[in-house]
Amino acid sequence: MKNIKLTIEYEGTNYSGWQKQENAITIQEKIEEAIEKATKEKVKLIGSGRTDGKVHALGQVANFLTSSNIPGEKYKYALKFLLPEDITIIESEEVDLKFHSRFDAIKKRYKYIVYNGELPRAIYRNFSYHVPYDIDIDEMFHASKYLIGTHDFATFMAANSDVNSTIRTIYNISIERNKDLIEFNIEGNSFLRNMVRIIVGTLLYVGYGKIKKQDIPKIILDRRREGAGPTAPPQGLFLEKVFYNP
Amino acid sequence: MKNIKLTIEYEGTNYSGWQKQENAITIQEKIEEAIEKATKEKVKLIGSGRTDGKVHALGQVANFLTSSNIPGEKYKYALKFLLPEDITIIESEEVDLKFHSRFDAIKKRYKYIVYNGELPRAIYRNFSYHVPYDIDIDEMFHASKYLIGTHDFATFMAANSDVNSTIRTIYNISIERNKDLIEFNIEGNSFLRNMVRIIVGTLLYVGYGKIKKQDIPKIILDRRREGAGPTAPPQGLFLEKVFYNP
Repeated sequence: MKNIKLTIEYEGTNYSGWQKQENAITIQEKIEEAIEKATKEKVKLIGSGRTDGKVHALGQVANFLTSSNIPGEKYKYALKFLLPEDITIIESEEVDLKFHSRFDAIKKRYKYIVYNGELPRAIYRNFSYHVPYDIDIDEMFHASKYLIGTHDFATFMAANSDVNSTIRTIYNISIERNKDLIEFNIEGNSFLRNMVRIIVGTLLYVGYGKIKKQDIPKIILDRRREGAGPTAPPQGLFLEKVFYNP
Repeated sequence: MKNIKLTIEYEGTNYSGWQKQENAITIQEKIEEAIEKATKEKVKLIGSGRTDGKVHALGQVANFLTSSNIPGEKYKYALKFLLPEDITIIESEEVDLKFHSRFDAIKKRYKYIVYNGELPRAIYRNFSYHVPYDIDIDEMFHASKYLIGTHDFATFMAANSDVNSTIRTIYNISIERNKDLIEFNIEGNSFLRNMVRIIVGTLLYVGYGKIKKQDIPKIILDRRREGAGPTAPPQGLFLEKVFYNP
Protein backbone atom coordinates (compact mmCIF):
# COMPACT_ATOMS: atom_id res chain seq x y z
CA MET A 1 0.00 0.00 0.00
CA LYS A 2 1.22 3.48 -0.85
CA ASN A 3 0.08 6.85 0.46
CA ILE A 4 0.22 9.49 -2.26
CA LYS A 5 0.22 13.23 -1.50
CA LEU A 6 -0.98 15.61 -4.23
CA THR A 7 -0.57 19.39 -4.36
CA ILE A 8 -3.38 20.80 -6.46
CA GLU A 9 -4.20 24.04 -8.23
CA TYR A 10 -7.74 24.73 -9.35
CA GLU A 11 -9.99 27.44 -10.60
CA GLY A 12 -13.17 26.99 -8.58
CA THR A 13 -15.42 28.99 -10.91
CA ASN A 14 -17.22 26.02 -12.42
CA TYR A 15 -17.41 23.80 -9.31
CA SER A 16 -19.62 23.50 -6.26
CA GLY A 17 -16.50 23.47 -4.11
CA TRP A 18 -14.09 20.76 -3.03
CA GLN A 19 -16.28 18.27 -1.20
CA LYS A 20 -18.11 15.53 -3.04
CA GLN A 21 -21.91 15.79 -2.92
CA GLU A 22 -24.97 14.53 -4.74
CA ASN A 23 -26.11 16.42 -7.84
CA ALA A 24 -23.17 18.79 -7.97
CA ILE A 25 -19.84 18.81 -9.73
CA THR A 26 -16.99 19.00 -7.25
CA ILE A 27 -13.22 19.05 -7.39
CA GLN A 28 -12.77 16.06 -5.10
CA GLU A 29 -14.99 13.96 -7.35
CA LYS A 30 -13.14 14.98 -10.53
CA ILE A 31 -9.76 14.08 -9.03
CA GLU A 32 -11.02 10.78 -7.59
CA GLU A 33 -12.35 9.88 -11.05
CA ALA A 34 -9.00 10.71 -12.64
CA ILE A 35 -7.09 8.65 -10.04
CA GLU A 36 -9.47 5.73 -10.57
CA LYS A 37 -8.79 5.85 -14.31
CA ALA A 38 -5.04 5.88 -13.67
CA THR A 39 -4.97 3.20 -10.95
CA LYS A 40 -8.04 1.09 -11.88
CA GLU A 41 -8.99 1.32 -8.20
CA LYS A 42 -11.69 3.14 -6.25
CA VAL A 43 -9.94 5.62 -4.00
CA LYS A 44 -10.96 8.01 -1.24
CA LEU A 45 -9.20 11.34 -1.61
CA ILE A 46 -8.66 13.16 1.69
CA GLY A 47 -8.36 16.93 1.30
CA SER A 48 -6.67 19.29 3.78
CA GLY A 49 -10.06 20.96 4.08
CA ARG A 50 -13.04 22.03 2.02
CA THR A 51 -13.21 25.02 -0.21
CA ASP A 52 -16.57 26.55 -1.15
CA GLY A 53 -17.98 26.84 -4.64
CA LYS A 54 -16.03 29.35 -6.81
CA VAL A 55 -13.11 29.45 -4.33
CA HIS A 56 -9.72 28.75 -5.95
CA ALA A 57 -6.64 26.92 -4.78
CA LEU A 58 -3.00 27.47 -5.65
CA GLY A 59 -1.81 24.75 -3.31
CA GLN A 60 -4.58 22.53 -1.96
CA VAL A 61 -3.18 19.29 -0.54
CA ALA A 62 -4.86 15.88 -0.60
CA ASN A 63 -3.78 12.27 -0.14
CA PHE A 64 -5.05 8.80 -0.95
CA LEU A 65 -4.07 5.19 -0.31
CA THR A 66 -3.53 2.90 -3.26
CA SER A 67 -2.08 -0.49 -4.06
CA SER A 68 -1.15 0.70 -7.56
CA ASN A 69 2.55 0.52 -8.32
CA ILE A 70 2.59 3.90 -10.11
CA PRO A 71 5.51 5.78 -8.49
CA GLY A 72 4.32 8.76 -6.39
CA GLU A 73 6.13 11.39 -8.44
CA LYS A 74 4.49 10.11 -11.64
CA TYR A 75 0.93 11.00 -10.67
CA LYS A 76 1.37 14.62 -11.69
CA TYR A 77 2.03 13.39 -15.23
CA ALA A 78 -0.41 10.46 -15.18
CA LEU A 79 -3.33 12.66 -14.11
CA LYS A 80 -2.53 15.50 -16.52
CA PHE A 81 -4.69 14.21 -19.36
CA LEU A 82 -7.34 12.68 -17.10
CA LEU A 83 -8.32 15.93 -15.41
CA PRO A 84 -10.23 18.93 -16.78
CA GLU A 85 -8.00 21.91 -17.58
CA ASP A 86 -9.18 23.90 -14.56
CA ILE A 87 -7.74 21.33 -12.12
CA THR A 88 -3.99 20.65 -12.25
CA ILE A 89 -1.69 18.57 -10.08
CA ILE A 90 1.40 20.66 -9.47
CA GLU A 91 3.24 18.16 -7.25
CA SER A 92 2.87 14.49 -6.34
CA GLU A 93 4.93 12.25 -4.06
CA GLU A 94 4.75 9.10 -2.01
CA VAL A 95 4.60 9.88 1.71
CA ASP A 96 4.57 7.94 4.98
CA LEU A 97 1.48 5.74 5.38
CA LYS A 98 0.59 7.73 8.50
CA PHE A 99 0.37 11.06 6.64
CA HIS A 100 -3.15 12.56 6.69
CA SER A 101 -3.61 15.78 4.77
CA ARG A 102 -6.27 17.18 7.10
CA PHE A 103 -5.13 16.03 10.56
CA ASP A 104 -1.43 16.74 9.92
CA ALA A 105 -1.84 20.26 8.51
CA ILE A 106 -0.23 22.71 10.93
CA LYS A 107 -0.84 25.96 9.10
CA LYS A 108 -2.77 27.32 6.12
CA ARG A 109 -2.30 30.48 4.12
CA TYR A 110 -5.17 32.09 2.23
CA LYS A 111 -5.10 35.01 -0.16
CA TYR A 112 -8.08 37.24 -0.89
CA ILE A 113 -8.13 39.69 -3.80
CA VAL A 114 -10.29 42.81 -3.86
CA TYR A 115 -10.51 44.81 -7.08
CA ASN A 116 -11.09 48.37 -5.94
CA GLY A 117 -11.85 50.19 -9.18
CA GLU A 118 -15.01 52.11 -9.95
CA LEU A 119 -16.29 49.82 -12.70
CA PRO A 120 -16.18 46.01 -13.00
CA ARG A 121 -13.32 44.45 -14.96
CA ALA A 122 -13.84 41.51 -17.31
CA ILE A 123 -10.47 39.88 -16.71
CA TYR A 124 -10.70 39.92 -12.90
CA ARG A 125 -14.33 38.94 -12.55
CA ASN A 126 -13.78 35.32 -11.47
CA PHE A 127 -10.66 36.05 -9.42
CA SER A 128 -11.57 39.03 -7.25
CA TYR A 129 -14.31 40.81 -5.33
CA HIS A 130 -15.21 44.08 -6.98
CA VAL A 131 -15.56 46.84 -4.37
CA PRO A 132 -16.14 50.30 -5.91
CA TYR A 133 -15.97 52.22 -2.59
CA ASP A 134 -13.08 54.13 -1.03
CA ILE A 135 -11.19 51.77 1.26
CA ASP A 136 -8.88 52.97 4.04
CA ILE A 137 -6.07 50.40 4.13
CA ASP A 138 -4.59 51.88 7.31
CA GLU A 139 -7.82 51.43 9.25
CA MET A 140 -8.06 47.82 8.07
CA PHE A 141 -4.44 47.20 9.04
CA HIS A 142 -5.03 48.43 12.58
CA ALA A 143 -8.27 46.44 12.86
CA SER A 144 -6.53 43.28 11.65
CA LYS A 145 -4.10 43.42 14.58
CA TYR A 146 -6.93 42.60 17.02
CA LEU A 147 -7.53 39.33 15.16
CA ILE A 148 -3.95 38.05 15.40
CA GLY A 149 -3.40 35.41 18.09
CA THR A 150 -5.52 32.70 19.68
CA HIS A 151 -9.17 33.67 20.07
CA ASP A 152 -12.63 32.22 20.09
CA PHE A 153 -13.61 33.05 16.51
CA ALA A 154 -17.30 32.03 16.83
CA THR A 155 -18.26 35.49 15.46
CA PHE A 156 -16.39 34.67 12.26
CA MET A 157 -18.06 31.37 11.45
CA ALA A 158 -20.89 30.57 9.05
CA ALA A 159 -24.17 30.21 10.97
CA ASN A 160 -25.14 26.61 11.82
CA SER A 161 -21.62 25.22 11.52
CA ASP A 162 -21.11 22.11 13.60
CA VAL A 163 -17.68 22.14 15.27
CA ASN A 164 -16.26 21.03 18.61
CA SER A 165 -14.35 24.20 19.24
CA THR A 166 -14.33 27.66 17.75
CA ILE A 167 -10.88 28.49 19.16
CA ARG A 168 -8.37 29.18 16.41
CA THR A 169 -4.99 30.88 16.07
CA ILE A 170 -4.23 33.50 13.43
CA TYR A 171 -0.50 33.99 12.93
CA ASN A 172 -0.50 36.82 10.47
CA ILE A 173 -2.67 39.10 8.33
CA SER A 174 -1.10 41.32 5.68
CA ILE A 175 -2.96 43.80 3.51
CA GLU A 176 -1.29 45.36 0.49
CA ARG A 177 -2.55 47.68 -2.19
CA ASN A 178 -1.07 47.49 -5.68
CA LYS A 179 -2.85 50.14 -7.77
CA ASP A 180 -6.52 49.10 -7.73
CA LEU A 181 -5.93 45.59 -6.39
CA ILE A 182 -5.91 44.94 -2.66
CA GLU A 183 -4.44 41.63 -1.52
CA PHE A 184 -5.12 40.13 1.90
CA ASN A 185 -2.88 37.31 3.13
CA ILE A 186 -4.10 35.41 6.17
CA GLU A 187 -2.21 32.63 7.94
CA GLY A 188 -3.62 30.52 10.74
CA ASN A 189 -3.44 27.05 12.25
CA SER A 190 -6.88 26.17 10.92
CA PHE A 191 -10.02 28.00 9.88
CA LEU A 192 -13.73 27.76 10.63
CA ARG A 193 -16.31 27.58 7.86
CA ASN A 194 -16.25 30.91 5.91
CA MET A 195 -13.83 32.39 8.47
CA VAL A 196 -11.47 34.02 5.97
CA ARG A 197 -14.35 35.46 3.97
CA ILE A 198 -16.05 36.86 7.10
CA ILE A 199 -12.75 38.35 8.30
CA VAL A 200 -12.26 40.03 4.92
CA GLY A 201 -15.88 41.22 4.86
CA THR A 202 -15.44 42.68 8.35
CA LEU A 203 -12.11 44.35 7.57
CA LEU A 204 -13.66 45.88 4.45
CA TYR A 205 -16.49 47.27 6.63
CA VAL A 206 -13.77 48.89 8.75
CA GLY A 207 -12.08 50.07 5.53
CA TYR A 208 -15.15 51.99 4.45
CA GLY A 209 -16.16 53.14 7.88
CA LYS A 210 -19.18 50.93 8.62
CA ILE A 211 -17.41 49.31 11.59
CA LYS A 212 -14.92 51.13 13.86
CA LYS A 213 -11.59 49.41 14.25
CA GLN A 214 -11.70 49.79 18.04
CA ASP A 215 -14.95 47.79 18.11
CA ILE A 216 -13.27 44.63 16.81
CA PRO A 217 -12.29 43.26 20.27
CA LYS A 218 -15.91 43.50 21.44
CA ILE A 219 -17.15 41.96 18.17
CA ILE A 220 -14.86 38.98 18.79
CA LEU A 221 -15.93 38.63 22.44
CA ASP A 222 -19.65 38.85 21.64
CA ARG A 223 -19.54 35.61 19.60
CA ARG A 224 -22.46 36.85 17.46
CA ARG A 225 -22.18 36.36 13.69
CA GLU A 226 -24.38 39.47 13.19
CA GLY A 227 -21.77 41.66 14.86
CA ALA A 228 -19.24 41.07 12.07
CA GLY A 229 -19.34 42.29 8.50
CA PRO A 230 -20.80 40.28 5.60
CA THR A 231 -19.19 37.17 4.14
CA ALA A 232 -17.01 38.37 1.27
CA PRO A 233 -17.90 36.52 -1.96
CA PRO A 234 -16.07 33.29 -2.83
CA GLN A 235 -14.41 34.22 -6.14
CA GLY A 236 -11.80 36.47 -4.43
CA LEU A 237 -10.51 33.65 -2.23
CA PHE A 238 -7.47 31.43 -2.91
CA LEU A 239 -6.21 28.62 -0.67
CA GLU A 240 -2.56 29.39 -1.25
CA LYS A 241 -0.59 26.88 0.79
CA VAL A 242 -1.02 24.13 3.37
CA PHE A 243 1.90 23.58 5.72
CA TYR A 244 3.05 20.32 7.33
CA ASN A 245 5.88 19.38 9.68
CA PRO A 246 8.85 18.25 7.63
CA MET B 1 -25.39 63.36 -33.78
CA LYS B 2 -22.77 62.32 -31.27
CA ASN B 3 -19.63 60.23 -31.71
CA ILE B 4 -18.99 58.05 -28.66
CA LYS B 5 -15.60 56.48 -27.92
CA LEU B 6 -15.51 53.38 -25.71
CA THR B 7 -12.47 51.79 -24.06
CA ILE B 8 -13.20 48.12 -23.54
CA GLU B 9 -11.79 45.23 -21.53
CA TYR B 10 -12.76 41.68 -22.40
CA GLU B 11 -11.86 38.11 -21.76
CA GLY B 12 -11.90 36.52 -25.20
CA THR B 13 -12.17 32.91 -23.98
CA ASN B 14 -15.82 32.43 -24.87
CA TYR B 15 -15.92 34.48 -28.09
CA SER B 16 -15.04 33.96 -31.74
CA GLY B 17 -13.09 37.21 -31.64
CA TRP B 18 -14.04 40.84 -32.07
CA GLN B 19 -15.56 40.98 -35.52
CA LYS B 20 -19.24 40.25 -36.11
CA GLN B 21 -19.92 37.15 -38.20
CA GLU B 22 -22.69 34.71 -38.96
CA ASN B 23 -23.18 31.76 -36.59
CA ALA B 24 -20.61 32.86 -34.05
CA ILE B 25 -20.73 34.88 -30.87
CA THR B 26 -18.50 37.92 -31.10
CA ILE B 27 -17.59 40.83 -28.90
CA GLN B 28 -18.59 43.49 -31.42
CA GLU B 29 -22.06 41.96 -31.67
CA LYS B 30 -22.52 41.81 -27.88
CA ILE B 31 -21.57 45.47 -27.46
CA GLU B 32 -23.73 46.60 -30.40
CA GLU B 33 -26.69 44.77 -28.84
CA ALA B 34 -26.06 46.47 -25.49
CA ILE B 35 -25.79 49.91 -27.12
CA GLU B 36 -29.00 49.29 -29.04
CA LYS B 37 -30.78 48.45 -25.80
CA ALA B 38 -29.47 51.64 -24.21
CA THR B 39 -30.09 53.98 -27.15
CA LYS B 40 -33.07 52.26 -28.87
CA GLU B 41 -31.11 52.70 -32.10
CA LYS B 42 -29.27 50.33 -34.45
CA VAL B 43 -25.59 51.29 -34.32
CA LYS B 44 -22.43 50.27 -36.13
CA LEU B 45 -19.54 49.89 -33.73
CA ILE B 46 -16.12 50.58 -35.29
CA GLY B 47 -13.27 48.82 -33.51
CA SER B 48 -9.61 49.87 -33.64
CA GLY B 49 -8.95 46.46 -35.15
CA ARG B 50 -9.99 42.82 -34.89
CA THR B 51 -8.87 40.42 -32.23
CA ASP B 52 -9.03 36.66 -32.85
CA GLY B 53 -11.07 34.16 -30.87
CA LYS B 54 -9.77 33.69 -27.29
CA VAL B 55 -7.60 36.84 -27.51
CA HIS B 56 -8.19 39.30 -24.66
CA ALA B 57 -8.22 43.08 -24.48
CA LEU B 58 -7.35 45.38 -21.62
CA GLY B 59 -7.94 48.51 -23.68
CA GLN B 60 -9.66 47.89 -27.01
CA VAL B 61 -11.10 51.11 -28.43
CA ALA B 62 -14.27 51.44 -30.49
CA ASN B 63 -16.61 54.25 -31.50
CA PHE B 64 -20.15 54.68 -32.79
CA LEU B 65 -22.42 57.45 -34.00
CA THR B 66 -25.73 57.99 -32.27
CA SER B 67 -28.52 60.53 -32.04
CA SER B 68 -29.26 59.45 -28.47
CA ASN B 69 -28.90 62.21 -25.90
CA ILE B 70 -27.17 59.92 -23.35
CA PRO B 71 -24.05 61.88 -22.31
CA GLY B 72 -20.84 60.19 -23.53
CA GLU B 73 -19.41 59.63 -20.06
CA LYS B 74 -22.61 57.83 -18.99
CA TYR B 75 -22.26 54.90 -21.39
CA LYS B 76 -19.82 53.09 -19.13
CA TYR B 77 -22.58 52.99 -16.50
CA ALA B 78 -25.50 52.52 -18.90
CA LEU B 79 -23.89 49.49 -20.57
CA LYS B 80 -22.75 47.87 -17.32
CA PHE B 81 -25.88 45.78 -16.80
CA LEU B 82 -26.52 45.24 -20.51
CA LEU B 83 -23.25 43.44 -21.21
CA PRO B 84 -22.09 39.97 -20.18
CA GLU B 85 -19.58 39.97 -17.30
CA ASP B 86 -16.64 39.12 -19.55
CA ILE B 87 -16.99 42.39 -21.49
CA THR B 88 -16.66 45.66 -19.57
CA ILE B 89 -16.55 49.29 -20.64
CA ILE B 90 -13.76 50.93 -18.66
CA GLU B 91 -14.08 54.40 -20.20
CA SER B 92 -16.60 56.25 -22.37
CA GLU B 93 -16.61 59.78 -23.73
CA GLU B 94 -18.03 61.93 -26.49
CA VAL B 95 -15.39 62.74 -29.11
CA ASP B 96 -15.15 64.85 -32.25
CA LEU B 97 -17.44 63.62 -35.04
CA LYS B 98 -14.37 63.05 -37.20
CA PHE B 99 -12.80 60.54 -34.77
CA HIS B 100 -12.45 57.02 -36.24
CA SER B 101 -11.07 54.37 -33.92
CA ARG B 102 -9.32 52.40 -36.67
CA PHE B 103 -8.06 55.10 -39.04
CA ASP B 104 -6.93 57.45 -36.27
CA ALA B 105 -5.00 54.88 -34.20
CA ILE B 106 -1.31 55.82 -34.27
CA LYS B 107 0.11 53.05 -32.08
CA LYS B 108 -0.94 49.80 -30.42
CA ARG B 109 0.58 47.90 -27.55
CA TYR B 110 0.11 44.15 -27.17
CA LYS B 111 1.13 41.90 -24.30
CA TYR B 112 1.76 38.18 -24.64
CA ILE B 113 2.10 35.90 -21.60
CA VAL B 114 4.00 32.62 -21.66
CA TYR B 115 3.76 30.32 -18.65
CA ASN B 116 7.08 28.52 -18.59
CA GLY B 117 6.55 25.86 -15.91
CA GLU B 118 6.84 22.12 -16.40
CA LEU B 119 3.19 21.29 -15.82
CA PRO B 120 0.03 23.15 -16.86
CA ARG B 121 -1.55 25.52 -14.33
CA ALA B 122 -5.32 25.73 -13.88
CA ILE B 123 -5.44 29.44 -13.05
CA TYR B 124 -3.38 30.56 -16.05
CA ARG B 125 -4.89 28.28 -18.66
CA ASN B 126 -7.03 30.88 -20.44
CA PHE B 127 -4.53 33.72 -20.03
CA SER B 128 -1.20 32.27 -21.14
CA TYR B 129 0.59 29.89 -23.47
CA HIS B 130 2.05 26.97 -21.58
CA VAL B 131 5.59 26.25 -22.79
CA PRO B 132 7.34 23.53 -20.75
CA TYR B 133 10.74 23.88 -22.49
CA ASP B 134 13.86 25.79 -21.40
CA ILE B 135 13.73 29.26 -22.91
CA ASP B 136 16.79 31.48 -23.33
CA ILE B 137 15.51 35.03 -22.75
CA ASP B 138 18.81 36.60 -23.81
CA GLU B 139 18.70 34.95 -27.22
CA MET B 140 15.11 36.12 -27.72
CA PHE B 141 16.07 39.64 -26.65
CA HIS B 142 18.86 39.83 -29.24
CA ALA B 143 16.62 38.34 -31.93
CA SER B 144 13.87 40.86 -31.15
CA LYS B 145 16.22 43.76 -31.97
CA TYR B 146 16.18 42.79 -35.66
CA LEU B 147 12.41 43.27 -35.73
CA ILE B 148 12.43 46.83 -34.38
CA GLY B 149 11.95 49.54 -37.00
CA THR B 150 10.14 49.78 -40.32
CA HIS B 151 10.20 46.54 -42.30
CA ASP B 152 8.19 44.53 -44.76
CA PHE B 153 6.62 42.06 -42.29
CA ALA B 154 5.06 39.76 -44.94
CA THR B 155 6.80 36.80 -43.25
CA PHE B 156 4.86 37.54 -40.06
CA MET B 157 1.37 37.59 -41.52
CA ALA B 158 -1.30 34.87 -41.53
CA ALA B 159 -1.36 33.13 -44.92
CA ASN B 160 -3.98 34.46 -47.37
CA SER B 161 -4.37 37.82 -45.67
CA ASP B 162 -5.57 40.52 -48.03
CA VAL B 163 -3.77 43.82 -47.42
CA ASN B 164 -2.45 46.68 -49.52
CA SER B 165 0.90 46.84 -47.83
CA THR B 166 2.86 44.61 -45.50
CA ILE B 167 5.15 47.43 -44.36
CA ARG B 168 4.81 48.10 -40.65
CA THR B 169 6.83 49.81 -37.94
CA ILE B 170 7.65 48.17 -34.62
CA TYR B 171 8.70 50.71 -32.01
CA ASN B 172 9.60 48.44 -29.15
CA ILE B 173 9.68 44.83 -27.95
CA SER B 174 10.38 44.03 -24.32
CA ILE B 175 10.69 40.55 -22.84
CA GLU B 176 10.68 40.02 -19.09
CA ARG B 177 10.75 36.93 -16.95
CA ASN B 178 9.05 36.96 -13.56
CA LYS B 179 9.56 33.49 -12.04
CA ASP B 180 7.83 31.12 -14.47
CA LEU B 181 5.91 33.81 -16.37
CA ILE B 182 7.47 35.46 -19.41
CA GLU B 183 5.83 38.67 -20.60
CA PHE B 184 6.35 40.09 -24.08
CA ASN B 185 5.34 43.69 -24.75
CA ILE B 186 5.19 44.75 -28.39
CA GLU B 187 4.45 48.26 -29.65
CA GLY B 188 3.94 49.17 -33.27
CA ASN B 189 2.08 51.58 -35.52
CA SER B 190 -0.23 48.84 -36.74
CA PHE B 191 -0.15 45.06 -37.07
CA LEU B 192 -0.85 42.50 -39.77
CA ARG B 193 -3.17 39.56 -39.17
CA ASN B 194 -1.58 37.28 -36.51
CA MET B 195 1.61 39.36 -36.59
CA VAL B 196 2.12 39.53 -32.82
CA ARG B 197 1.45 35.82 -32.39
CA ILE B 198 3.85 34.89 -35.22
CA ILE B 199 6.53 37.20 -33.79
CA VAL B 200 6.12 35.56 -30.37
CA GLY B 201 6.14 32.07 -31.91
CA THR B 202 9.31 32.94 -33.81
CA LEU B 203 11.07 34.47 -30.80
CA LEU B 204 10.18 31.37 -28.76
CA TYR B 205 11.76 29.20 -31.47
CA VAL B 206 14.90 31.32 -31.02
CA GLY B 207 14.50 30.92 -27.26
CA TYR B 208 14.64 27.16 -27.45
CA GLY B 209 17.20 27.00 -30.22
CA LYS B 210 15.09 25.97 -33.22
CA ILE B 211 15.88 29.24 -35.05
CA LYS B 212 19.21 31.11 -34.74
CA LYS B 213 18.90 34.76 -33.79
CA GLN B 214 21.25 35.82 -36.59
CA ASP B 215 18.89 34.25 -39.15
CA ILE B 216 16.08 36.69 -38.32
CA PRO B 217 17.12 39.38 -40.86
CA LYS B 218 17.06 36.80 -43.67
CA ILE B 219 13.72 35.42 -42.43
CA ILE B 220 12.28 38.95 -42.65
CA LEU B 221 13.74 39.56 -46.13
CA ASP B 222 12.52 36.22 -47.52
CA ARG B 223 8.85 37.19 -47.06
CA ARG B 224 7.93 33.51 -46.62
CA ARG B 225 5.52 32.63 -43.78
CA GLU B 226 7.16 29.17 -43.53
CA GLY B 227 10.50 30.73 -42.59
CA ALA B 228 9.12 32.04 -39.30
CA GLY B 229 8.09 30.08 -36.22
CA PRO B 230 4.53 28.90 -35.54
CA THR B 231 1.66 31.21 -34.62
CA ALA B 232 1.60 31.31 -30.82
CA PRO B 233 -1.88 30.38 -29.51
CA PRO B 234 -4.46 33.12 -28.95
CA GLN B 235 -5.12 32.81 -25.22
CA GLY B 236 -1.74 34.37 -24.27
CA LEU B 237 -2.44 37.58 -26.20
CA PHE B 238 -3.82 40.83 -24.79
CA LEU B 239 -4.51 44.02 -26.75
CA GLU B 240 -3.29 46.34 -24.03
CA LYS B 241 -3.66 49.87 -25.35
CA VAL B 242 -4.54 51.80 -28.51
CA PHE B 243 -2.95 55.24 -28.84
CA TYR B 244 -4.37 58.33 -30.56
CA ASN B 245 -3.13 61.85 -31.09
CA PRO B 246 -4.39 64.03 -28.27
